[in-house]
Amino acid sequence: MEDIATYVEGLAAAAKAASRPLGFASNEQRVAAVRAMATALRDAEPTILEQNGLDMDAAAKAGTNAGLLDRLKLTHERIEGMASGLEKLAELPDPMGRVLEHRTIDCGLDLQKVSVPLGLVAMVYEARPNVTADAAGICIRTGNACILRGGSMAQRSCVAIAHALADAVEACGFSREAVSIIETTDRAATGALMGLRGIVDVLIPRGGAGLIQRCVKESLVPVIETGTGNCHIYLHKDVDMQKALPIIVNAKTQRVGVCNAAESLLVDDAVADAALPQVVKTLHEHGVFIHGDAMTCAAAAAAGLAEGADYVPATEQDWGREYLALEMSVKVVADEDEAIAHINRYGTGHSEAIVTEDTAAGERFLREVDASSVYVNASTRFTDGGEFGLGAEIGISTQKLHARGPFAAEALTTYKYEIRGCGQTRP
Amino acid sequence: MEDIATYVEGLAAAAKAASRPLGFASNEQRVAAVRAMATALRDAEPTILEQNGLDMDAAAKAGTNAGLLDRLKLTHERIEGMASGLEKLAELPDPMGRVLEHRTIDCGLDLQKVSVPLGLVAMVYEARPNVTADAAGICIRTGNACILRGGSMAQRSCVAIAHALADAVEACGFSREAVSIIETTDRAATGALMGLRGIVDVLIPRGGAGLIQRCVKESLVPVIETGTGNCHIYLHKDVDMQKALPIIVNAKTQRVGVCNAAESLLVDDAVADAALPQVVKTLHEHGVFIHGDAMTCAAAAAAGLAEGADYVPATEQDWGREYLALEMSVKVVADEDEAIAHINRYGTGHSEAIVTEDTAAGERFLREVDASSVYVNASTRFTDGGEFGLGAEIGISTQKLHARGPFAAEALTTYKYEIRGCGQTRP
Repeated sequence: MEDIATYVEGLAAAAKAASRPLGFASNEQRVAAVRAMATALRDAEPTILEQNGLDMDAAAKAGTNAGLLDRLKLTHERIEGMASGLEKLAELPDPMGRVLEHRTIDCGLDLQKVSVPLGLVAMVYEARPNVTADAAGICIRTGNACILRGGSMAQRSCVAIAHALADAVEACGFSREAVSIIETTDRAATGALMGLRGIVDVLIPRGGAGLIQRCVKESLVPVIETGTGNCHIYLHKDVDMQKALPIIVNAKTQRVGVCNAAESLLVDDAVADAALPQVVKTLHEHGVFIHGDAMTCAAAAAAGLAEGADYVPATEQDWGREYLALEMSVKVVADEDEAIAHINRYGTGHSEAIVTEDTAAGERFLREVDASSVYVNASTRFTDGGEFGLGAEIGISTQKLHARGPFAAEALTTYKYEIRGCGQTRP
Repeated sequence: MEDIATYVEGLAAAAKAASRPLGFASNEQRVAAVRAMATALRDAEPTILEQNGLDMDAAAKAGTNAGLLDRLKLTHERIEGMASGLEKLAELPDPMGRVLEHRTIDCGLDLQKVSVPLGLVAMVYEARPNVTADAAGICIRTGNACILRGGSMAQRSCVAIAHALADAVEACGFSREAVSIIETTDRAATGALMGLRGIVDVLIPRGGAGLIQRCVKESLVPVIETGTGNCHIYLHKDVDMQKALPIIVNAKTQRVGVCNAAESLLVDDAVADAALPQVVKTLHEHGVFIHGDAMTCAAAAAAGLAEGADYVPATEQDWGREYLALEMSVKVVADEDEAIAHINRYGTGHSEAIVTEDTAAGERFLREVDASSVYVNASTRFTDGGEFGLGAEIGISTQKLHARGPFAAEALTTYKYEIRGCGQTRP
């Protein structure tokens, strides 16, 4: 293979060229392409399963753990799931071509601000082949071309899926490069992709903290940062424990490996004596290992939990940790001031919740906590594009520019100003 | 002075802390602060002029050119201009606290998407002291704290202005660190600022291409890229030269050092024989030096212009150049296809214009040219926050994420989701 950087740049340039006609295609044309992609995926099932089998064999030989193997594995049902996901995209309202503003400005110029696609979207992800179809689908639906970079372990599966989708796009009259995938597992390709500012319009990493941090640090292409969630639940002094305990259990244990799971519990000092025994007991019953401050550890010991096996004293580091496991840090705070300051210091701006019967305290928390999604009396697990009614979620942004919190098709738009005149010059 | 990185981080951390109460201050409180800033600036005029005099002396001694000295110089009128600019900000509608969406989602949760300030805004600029007041004013108006980094040549002037503004902010009950300025001319301070991802929410460079490129390349903090404009005017085959010539003259010569000035002229082959003689004559009469392709050079020679003195053959490099001077590249293109492809290849996504009597050609140009502001039959010089009716412009973004084209107060907002429940957990 030729030099990796040259290869990636050539691929991206072709994808960018392919993005142009897509960008002004009609809604009907884009919907037809997404539907054709669904059909193509179903038709390509034998090839995709065969290539996935090769990926699975290689991964198993390399000693990959069961969790990763499960994410990698494709079945008839999972391919059908991808295809029906594409069909759902077809039904989304079109986010493009909306007139966001329209007015006559100085000198009689007619000015319209119109939503348009970004152009070329790069998605970098890990060994989840289904992301290939999700990512390509949302891009084509929104008039963007995409350049995909899947995890090396899933390379054959991702390429097989991308080829089937590119065939469909081509059959609909678009350039097949509108769905491009990097066909080398060389790590240098990701670096090359991150350097293509001006060709690639946005880079969206989907995966673990390591991948995302690499993109944030190295990319010259603008990145939408996703995924890390050190989410807190704060039990205010006017907490109703009948609400609090189910919220804690749900936020911590319903699905532990996700970014909207709670990682840290703050307990108001005024209710600590009453609340902590219930909290440590409930967490323990649900298999949650506790990293507690002094009061929490005392309550855990008093409840008969074993230091080391069931709980340990928390370190400063624990306040910033995203466990993504059945572990939780627990800390007593003096009051709401301290709770908010602690969250704004250690949180990742993802999802934060207060449990309180005091409306004013709840409103203050909503106002003063700096995060994409702030809750009163509800589980942080609701932070999700589907739950929020946004349609097909692309990810959950923890940055503030362009897209914050759960984001979907609209985040793949920008806008342009169209100005119609009859010879005007600036005075 | 202590280590530069520690100094800048401490300054930014204090500014970030100051941003919190500003972020949920009422509109009235923020308006009062901006008005107080205007008054403080007027009151501090003697100090500011004194410090500016020191900057001017040092700059003159260093052999600074007249243009830069003029930008650096403050007078009573210029200080009054800054103060009245601040008073205008007070009258802007409040971009904060708007409910962007409101609905009841699953499980009866009440969801509101609300506009909120970004938090801490860093502005890095050059030797124009007035940017200090503009930048601080728009930030305080929108509930953001700012950390400012002025050009070293204007350091004393910028610090004097910032101190006056900080005094005013403090007198209004906010922390004076809400208007922070880096008080060292050490270049390392800018580098340190660019590393503060997570503390600084956005970095906005205002200045020349060198500064902006440095920020784009080095910053870990998200940047809004501004300022470079390689803007084109395309004379379509159905051009009305009575409109075209004034548009060319206005776009090229009305103000040459600005990013919305035209730098390149494309002439449709079908009208080149008729148009080029008028074009080269008009440009020449307005003192514009021509970088022409073969046909343009031939027309220039035929019109009696002198090669070397009045025109030269264009090189490949010329198509991408932003002259910011009385120079223009001129090229004949085969048709609208080539014009659009050329613009999408060499343009900077700023402002692009077609001159045509053919509505369909105009609409196609609007649709297919990838730029923030696309014009039919008007000068590119209209690309401006004031002209577009946006209020106080911060800059003109040439990126697609978050803010594109002229941007103002709204670009200093993000949003958060506020979710009010009564104990809901995710099923």
